[in-house]
Parts: sequence; structure tokens; C-alpha cells
Amino acid sequence: MSRFISKKYENLEPHTTEEHIHQKKTIRLNTNESPYPASSFVYRSIDQFEIDNLRLYSDPEAGKLIKSISENFGVNENQIAVGNGSDEILAFAFMAFQNENKKFYFPEVSYESYSVYSDVFGINKKEIPLAPDLKINPEDYFNLDGTIVIANPNTPTGLALTACEIEEILRTNRNNLVIIDEAYVDFGGESCVPLVEKFDNLLVIQTFSKSRNLAGARVGFAIANDEIIADLNRIKFSFNPYNISRLSIIAGTAAMKDKDYFKKCINEIKRTRERFSKEMQSLGFTVLESKANFVFVRNDSIQGEDYGKALQDKNIWVKHYPDSLIKDYVRITIGTAEQMDIFIKTTKDILGIEEPSEN
Amino acid sequence: MSRFISKKYENLEPHTTEEHIHQKKTIRLNTNESPYPASSFVYRSIDQFEIDNLRLYSDPEAGKLIKSISENFGVNENQIAVGNGSDEILAFAFMAFQNENKKFYFPEVSYESYSVYSDVFGINKKEIPLAPDLKINPEDYFNLDGTIVIANPNTPTGLALTACEIEEILRTNRNNLVIIDEAYVDFGGESCVPLVEKFDNLLVIQTFSKSRNLAGARVGFAIANDEIIADLNRIKFSFNPYNISRLSIIAGTAAMKDKDYFKKCINEIKRTRERFSKEMQSLGFTVLESKANFVFVRNDSIQGEDYGKALQDKNIWVKHYPDSLIKDYVRITIGTAEQMDIFIKTTKDILGIEEPSEN
Repeated sequence: MSRFISKKYENLEPHTTEEHIHQKKTIRLNTNESPYPASSFVYRSIDQFEIDNLRLYSDPEAGKLIKSISENFGVNENQIAVGNGSDEILAFAFMAFQNENKKFYFPEVSYESYSVYSDVFGINKKEIPLAPDLKINPEDYFNLDGTIVIANPNTPTGLALTACEIEEILRTNRNNLVIIDEAYVDFGGESCVPLVEKFDNLLVIQTFSKSRNLAGARVGFAIANDEIIADLNRIKFSFNPYNISRLSIIAGTAAMKDKDYFKKCINEIKRTRERFSKEMQSLGFTVLESKANFVFVRNDSIQGEDYGKALQDKNIWVKHYPDSLIKDYVRITIGTAEQMDIFIKTTKDILGIEEPSEN
Repeated sequence: MSRFISKKYENLEPHTTEEHIHQKKTIRLNTNESPYPASSFVYRSIDQFEIDNLRLYSDPEAGKLIKSISENFGVNENQIAVGNGSDEILAFAFMAFQNENKKFYFPEVSYESYSVYSDVFGINKKEIPLAPDLKINPEDYFNLDGTIVIANPNTPTGLALTACEIEEILRTNRNNLVIIDEAYVDFGGESCVPLVEKFDNLLVIQTFSKSRNLAGARVGFAIANDEIIADLNRIKFSFNPYNISRLSIIAGTAAMKDKDYFKKCINEIKRTRERFSKEMQSLGFTVLESKANFVFVRNDSIQGEDYGKALQDKNIWVKHYPDSLIKDYVRITIGTAEQMDIFIKTTKDILGIEEPSEN
């Protein structure tokens, strides 16, 4: 730390990132990336012409990308904002809607960055405990007096609220902004995008990083009424007007248009998740009912931390959380069917199970 | 504006961006982009493998990019931070080093975003007037009591301070951070990077957008002592850890390695600038002595705004500033030699000059 650092940030604890260097032979199931390559539309749209044109600034309005999202979701272009990953949209949202007199409410166990963004912007945060079964209890969010942020499905649990439950939160918080982070919604959750027409206090955030196979392109988007979108863009244009690179605008637009591949990939992930969940249950694991591209599991016969380390010793990476409430669990990204077969086999080795069970 | 917007931002005026849609037949000399395509190294390094791998997150440390910058400048890797364009680095710097009790000083005429960032972070800004010849007077920056931000060369004038002059500013401000924005330095300015070893109060910011032909990749970088770099990274990792896309990390790394092409492009720009400046002088223009990839010109026979509009009517875009101090001028990006020939011809038409002068 230099002597010039702002007093505000002397004690700031950044979000720690997972290891992202991918090596051969290592199966990385710790960061919820897609196991499938980017759409072939992306490859076809990035040609010599577009690479030569990197000399030119990107379109600060990201017009083509916004248009592709508009067409896909059937919402107006002025109801969409795009960002350098959904992380940037979230950061802009915490920044734009910070309020000295209003708390930000979010689940005690959820995406870690909500807490970091609160700290960065000096927001008074109030973390709401999960129910004992690790579900979010919607009633805990009725009639609050501040901004609400909910990941749906939630991470790392994978558990989802229904659109009806979120509608009730919106209805009882007419004067509070409700941010629904739908990073994982395409894997089985119910999206709130259709509720944007009905509720002017709803901000939905999605990403290209998971179901659209483009984590490395850094593209996220927000859908809300035009006034909320204008607020986000006011921050964007004051902070980093050219926030998305030319090639990422191209990649995102192409991926959004390749609907067949999108469906194929998410269906494959869901199929693998269901099969994998059953197999893990047959090995004695408790597997939360995931609507995401990962599962959250525990097994009374092995501590979460030990299980994670044992897997890592065998070149499989998963994510373990030291927080006491969820320390018994590990979060496992759903990879390819082949990767999950190796995972099951490795887990049997770790648990000393010689023969598969009869289930 | 929604009813949820933070009180802080109700009156925020974002930086207005220039038109960036490039159309055939239009010569865009308003945004200081390079007229030359990205290095062929970039095209060769973005292949099917890398595009397939967009499914994976980018390296939050941007290790390869940092290494290429380190090798190029002969500074340690922990003295380098990279950002989503130098705009993001600047925003992170204003954020990291904001101080309620210290002003931020910068030239009254300079990059417009310094003022916007000050407003975004509630920084008390103090704009220092230019000298009557539009130069920055270094003595105005001696022994101040706050953070100093200087674009060198400055925009839109193109005028540069010498490294000696900046060293004197650094020497007389040992307890103040001095940020030198070297977006345009490669076109003839003297870089302060070598002063980083000597001054722990210096933060140098450069970009890939101009001299490295990659405006659309959005890559900028900072060089400073390791503590200042750690401060910037603390903000980055709290705001947007994966702030640079995979393809932009690849593009920046490739461009930094193609030193021959870099030199060839900047030499061509400098050659064109000198020839163009002489021709404009021969048409009666005052041309400030530019060390950048643009020139700032005026002509007593035509008002700046009128000149800009007349050019635009003939499909040539330049930038005019309505501020009274510089309203007589227009800023003209140096394009290809052919573009500047068309520019000269068009200007003769506008001024009603039938025959070229004898110079």
C-alpha cells in the first residue's frame, strides 16, 4: 500500500479470485465455466477485417450487441445496458444506487462480490441468513427499507426462488430497487425478465460467461425499465465509455444469435447434472437441488475441506468455502459427461468404495 | 433518471463520446485513432483455439500481457498494472487516491475525463489555466498540496513538457502523487517511465489505443513503484477482477512484441504530421508544435466551428471545442498520407484558395 491510498480503502479486502490457469490433465470444476467451446458463430465473425479494425474504438453504445439482446428477449433497446462482464454491471449498480440512508440487503451466503462492492462504495450492508436448509426464505425480503440483491439461482447452493416468489418480493418493495442476478438462470431457473414490464423497481442482470460459453469475452447485461438503464449508463459513460472491446461486442452478438447451440449446451449440462447428482447421491452425498451449472454437495463421511483437497491431489479442482455454515460442502461445476465420469471414479477412490453401489 | 439514483449522481455530466461509427467515404480524424491496422502478430495469435477458449475466464493477473510490457520497458512486473483501456486505469487511480483533504490539480484545457472522474468520486478539483500560448507552465505545478494529473503531450494542444520539467514537478511534490498520462507520448514526447525508479510519487499511464493501433481492444497500462501498483490492483480486484478479455490480453501482448511495426507506424505518423503541418502553415494556419498523433490548428480567416462544419459537409470529421479559450482551433488526427492530401485539398476549397502557395 502506498502513502497515497485513500483512507476509504486502507482496509478494503478485494474479492479473491480462483486459480484460472488451465493446465492439461487438470479438470477444473471450480469456476462454473462452460465445458463447451464458444459458438462457431463467434469464430466465423472474428475475421482479418475485424482484427485489422481493432485500430478503431469500439462502439460505446455497443449497438449490435444491444440489438441482439433486444431481439432475443423481446425488450426494447433502451431497456438494456451492457457491461464488461456482469461484474462491471453489478459494480455500476452498487455505485449508481448507493444511498447513505438505505441499506443493501442480500443473502448471507451468496456471490461474494456483493459484500466487496458494498465495502468499496461505503454502503451499509445487511446480510440476511439463509434458512437451515440453505434456501433463501422469500418472506425475509418482504417490506424492507433498502435495496435488495438476490442471486437466482443462488451461488454456491444452486437453489432457486420461483418467479412468483420474486414477484412477491417486488410487490412488497415498491419503493426499493430489487436486483436479481441471473448469472445461472438458464440452467433451470425461472427468469424475471418478463416482470420488467410490470415492475419499475426490478433490475435483472445476466451474463455471457456461463450459459453462453463466453467467460473470457467479459460481457454481461442488464434488463430493466429505461430509467434504471439510463442510470447505469450515466455511470458507465462517466467511468469507462468504451467498456467493451470490439471483439467482445462481436463475440457476444454472435453467441446471442446462435440459439440452437445455446439450447444444446444448456440441455447437455442439465442432463449431465441430473445424472451426476443421482450418482453422487448413490455414493452417500447430499446434493442440493441445483438449477445452476454446478452442484453443492456434502457427505457425512468426509469433511468438505478434506474432500476438496483429496480431489485436488488427483488433479480435480472444486471450490470449498471455509464459512462455518457451508464448510461441510464443496461446489462442483458441471463439466462434460466424461469429466463427471472421472469425477465419480475419483470420488469412489477417495471414499474407498471398491464397487459401484446398486443404484 | 430513476427514483433510485444516488443523490451523488443526480447532476453528474458524463464525458460525451465522439461519433465512432465509421462509414465508407467518411474520413474520421476526430478521435486520434491510428490509420494503420493492428499488427499482423495480433491476427496470427487469435486462432480457433483461442476463440474456442473464450469459454474460460481471462487471467485476472493478465500475466502474459504484463510480461510483454515488463520486457519492453525494462521494469519489474510488480511495477505494472493493466486496465480495460487507460480510461479504466485513470478511473481506478482517481478512485484509489481520492482524498477529502487534498485537491486534484490538472490543466484547465486537457483530457475531459479528468474533470468527469473528479465529479464521479466527489473529488475537489482545481483546474490550472494554460499559459497564453496554450502551453502548460510547469512552475504552476511546483509545491502544490494535492494530487497532480498532467497529460503529456497534452490534448488537444499536442504540446509537451520535457522530462526535465516533469522531474522538477516531481521533485517539488514529494508528498503528492503525480499522474502523467502518456497516451500520446510515442509520437514525439519524452516518456517519464525512466523516472519511476527515482520517484515513488510518480504514476505513468500509457495506452494501446494510439501508437499500438488497438483502440478497439481496450487495453491500457500503468507503470509506477510497486506500492502504487498494488493500490490500483486493490481497486481492480474489488471492482472487476477479470477486467480485460482473453482476446484483448492476446492482442495487447502480440502488439507489444511487434516492435518493428510499432516503430514503422509511429515514424510514418510523425513524417505525415511534419509534412501536413508545413502545408497547413503555408495555407495561413497557426499549427501548434505537436508531439502527438494530431495537430491543433487555427486560421484567422475562418472560425474554428465554421471550419469544422465545412469539413464535415465534405465528409471529413475533426474535433472542435466550444470552450472560449480554444474555440478558434480544431484538432485534426493525423491519418494516412493520402487522407491528409485530401484534407489539404478540401481545406483549399473551403478557404477558396485556387492555386497552391509557393512554399
